[in-house]
Amino acid sequence: MSDRILYITRKEHFNAAHKLYNPDWTREKNDEVFGKCANDNWHGHNFDLYVTIKGVPNPETGFVMDLKKLGAIIKTTVVDVIDHRNINMDVPFMKDKLASIENLAIGIWDQIEPHLDRGVQLHRVKLWETRNNYVEFFG
Amino acid sequence: MSDRILYITRKEHFNAAHKLYNPDWTREKNDEVFGKCANDNWHGHNFDLYVTIKGVPNPETGFVMDLKKLGAIIKTTVVDVIDHRNINMDVPFMKDKLASIENLAIGIWDQIEPHLDRGVQLHRVKLWETRNNYVEFFG
Amino acid sequence: MSDRILYITRKEHFNAAHKLYNPDWTREKNDEVFGKCANDNWHGHNFDLYVTIKGVPNPETGFVMDLKKLGAIIKTTVVDVIDHRNINMDVPFMKDKLASIENLAIGIWDQIEPHLDRGVQLHRVKLWETRNNYVEFFG
Amino acid sequence: MSDRILYITRKEHFNAAHKLYNPDWTREKNDEVFGKCANDNWHGHNFDLYVTIKGVPNPETGFVMDLKKLGAIIKTTVVDVIDHRNINMDVPFMKDKLASIENLAIGIWDQIEPHLDRGVQLHRVKLWETRNNYVEFFG
Amino acid sequence: MSDRILYITRKEHFNAAHKLYNPDWTREKNDEVFGKCANDNWHGHNFDLYVTIKGVPNPETGFVMDLKKLGAIIKTTVVDVIDHRNINMDVPFMKDKLASIENLAIGIWDQIEPHLDRGVQLHRVKLWETRNNYVEFFG
Amino acid sequence: MSDRILYITRKEHFNAAHKLYNPDWTREKNDEVFGKCANDNWHGHNFDLYVTIKGVPNPETGFVMDLKKLGAIIKTTVVDVIDHRNINMDVPFMKDKLASIENLAIGIWDQIEPHLDRGVQLHRVKLWETRNNYVEFFG
Repeated sequence: MSDRILYITRKEHFNAAHKLYNPDWTREKNDEVFGKCANDNWHGHNFDLYVTIKGVPNPETGFVMDLKKLGAIIKTTVVDVIDHRNINMDVPFMKDKLASIENLAIGIWDQIEPHLDRGVQLHRVKLWETRNNYVEFFG
Repeated sequence: MSDRILYITRKEHFNAAHKLYNPDWTREKNDEVFGKCANDNWHGHNFDLYVTIKGVPNPETGFVMDLKKLGAIIKTTVVDVIDHRNINMDVPFMKDKLASIENLAIGIWDQIEPHLDRGVQLHRVKLWETRNNYVEFFG
Repeated sequence: MSDRILYITRKEHFNAAHKLYNPDWTREKNDEVFGKCANDNWHGHNFDLYVTIKGVPNPETGFVMDLKKLGAIIKTTVVDVIDHRNINMDVPFMKDKLASIENLAIGIWDQIEPHLDRGVQLHRVKLWETRNNYVEFFG
Repeated sequence: MSDRILYITRKEHFNAAHKLYNPDWTREKNDEVFGKCANDNWHGHNFDLYVTIKGVPNPETGFVMDLKKLGAIIKTTVVDVIDHRNINMDVPFMKDKLASIENLAIGIWDQIEPHLDRGVQLHRVKLWETRNNYVEFFG
Repeated sequence: MSDRILYITRKEHFNAAHKLYNPDWTREKNDEVFGKCANDNWHGHNFDLYVTIKGVPNPETGFVMDLKKLGAIIKTTVVDVIDHRNINMDVPFMKDKLASIENLAIGIWDQIEPHLDRGVQLHRVKLWETRNNYVEFFG
Repeated sequence: MSDRILYITRKEHFNAAHKLYNPDWTREKNDEVFGKCANDNWHGHNFDLYVTIKGVPNPETGFVMDLKKLGAIIKTTVVDVIDHRNINMDVPFMKDKLASIENLAIGIWDQIEPHLDRGVQLHRVKLWETRNNYVEFFG
């Protein structure tokens, strides 16, 4: 049974402000494309983040990876950096990028991946922005 | 980064009546196979619909596709056609089909797909019928 | 401790069709007041029902009332009567009433109350119709 | 049955940025009391708003109040004013107040109450800020 | 505005094992009354706990009570005592009591109440045991 | 249309006790690796189980497989065996295995797969243990 692959998902969350704004465009173009998401004074969300890894369970622990350790990686590299902050202004790994959830999901992937255990693969980053939309990135 | 593929999901919902009934069968056969879902006077559900598209984000907007536009396509081609209606009697794209969620998911796929932006692919239609079951169609 | 009052809530659910329609009005007046809820061929919902009782726990069991028994009362008097049915046409206790959730909550109260244990009071019937609205009736 | 009181709840939602900050205090005092909620560059939330009214159903419609009308009042006086905005900077009814959810709930009450139908009472404003906390105001 | 009362709710959760068993009864009587909840080798739940306080907001902070402080009280007096434990065997404040959710809610009330700020009242302890039932205690 | 593949998911749930404990290790090693999950007197969870099958809908019924039949298979082979029991002590198919959710998901797959209709494939077993983590097994 030890060569069977399993997928483990850990859910975390953070609250942050952002706006959608392309500095190469006029105010009017930004309003036309991004609508109320371009509001000068920001808006914000409760983001729900699901991180999925895959691998073969360790026969001694039954674990693909210790979930406490995975949780600590997500907390240190993502939640502590974004939570109760402004994604456009305060988050180093989003500097000079459009603060869309697409770019945020890619950025989160790049924060987490280098820290996983050997033999464990990052499979998916899924990020809910509102109760009506989410993005998924598979690397 | 511009060649990285992302998956975007938009959630919509609608409320509708239906029944499961095969007109080629006797009343008894319908009751035997479909049980209370075959009730003559209909029953109904709050359907939750998740539509997933995939593509490469536009570098100028950070978007795979404008979610407001995707929402408008789903609203026009699906929600406005089904919401507060009877799936068996009132919905043109379900005419002469069994009103199972399997057939409904296929019908919804065919309604949405022709309207997506060039370069964007429809990846999945997921439809919750009750809090205990859902169907997924990948084309 | 035996005279402390506790409130116990049991959640059940059912799926049903209905429409809002006042037979004393013209078609036009019904459409004007009830909008798409007046659709001739019905629509439907997944209803979530929360029934709250109150009383003093029995010192031998720790229970205000056996939840299995409360669940069986709700099932027999409400769920079995409405589930996968048409509220306007199939439900005896809604006969000749407008099929609004307000009237449905009152009807459900009257179905359940006579069957509770002596010393237990029905406190509230709460009924979700969609994910955006619910009604509460306290008798 | 026409004198029975019912409670109707309508759920709406909005996304907004805010920070907790008392301008009469030093930076250090604000950080000490409000912690990361005092971040200069804002943070934000998906707020879920539940508005409960009470009254006697109209015998002709079965309604305490037309939910479409209640929804329109909430949209016009609250959601359109706050959604995708900055509570501290952009919302007239929060001007010169601490942007706590306590004050926000009181402000929302005062926005909605004058617009309800005669005979209908505002019973409760309930506001979820994160998945772990909410405030209720009963007037 | 400073004399307006607000209700604040904090949600926490814990996972625990328990069984329903009255030591004064025979095995048969326990099985008859408690059914599968009397299983000798225990079963368990993810409990969701909602603690509601009420009071007048402090004009300097906008807070009825600092939610971080309320969270810390619940964590220290309840979650740290129950989480990943056996309610019947490991929890001092449930010693010699039937491990029903009714008794657990009363026990949680008594743990939290002495630690609240002066001027803040404990209003309600609400405890979900499964997705289908919860108990409320108002003191 | 009859050769289009659809995925159907059925949700069930059960409540159970377990602990994480490797009998080949010392008490100290178990505490170090498994933390509070190794508590001697057990803890427990409300598990949410999602079983996904795939296949081509039957043209006479519109069904990939009768969901009542799928539900009955899951109930007989999984829920009736685990619900309100102790996973380490009471569940035959988990005997001599570490009671991790990884091993539980594999065990559930092996219980269900032999009973499916000819032409229907088991696609995924997904198991939520807490509101923050789940495992998926694809065979």
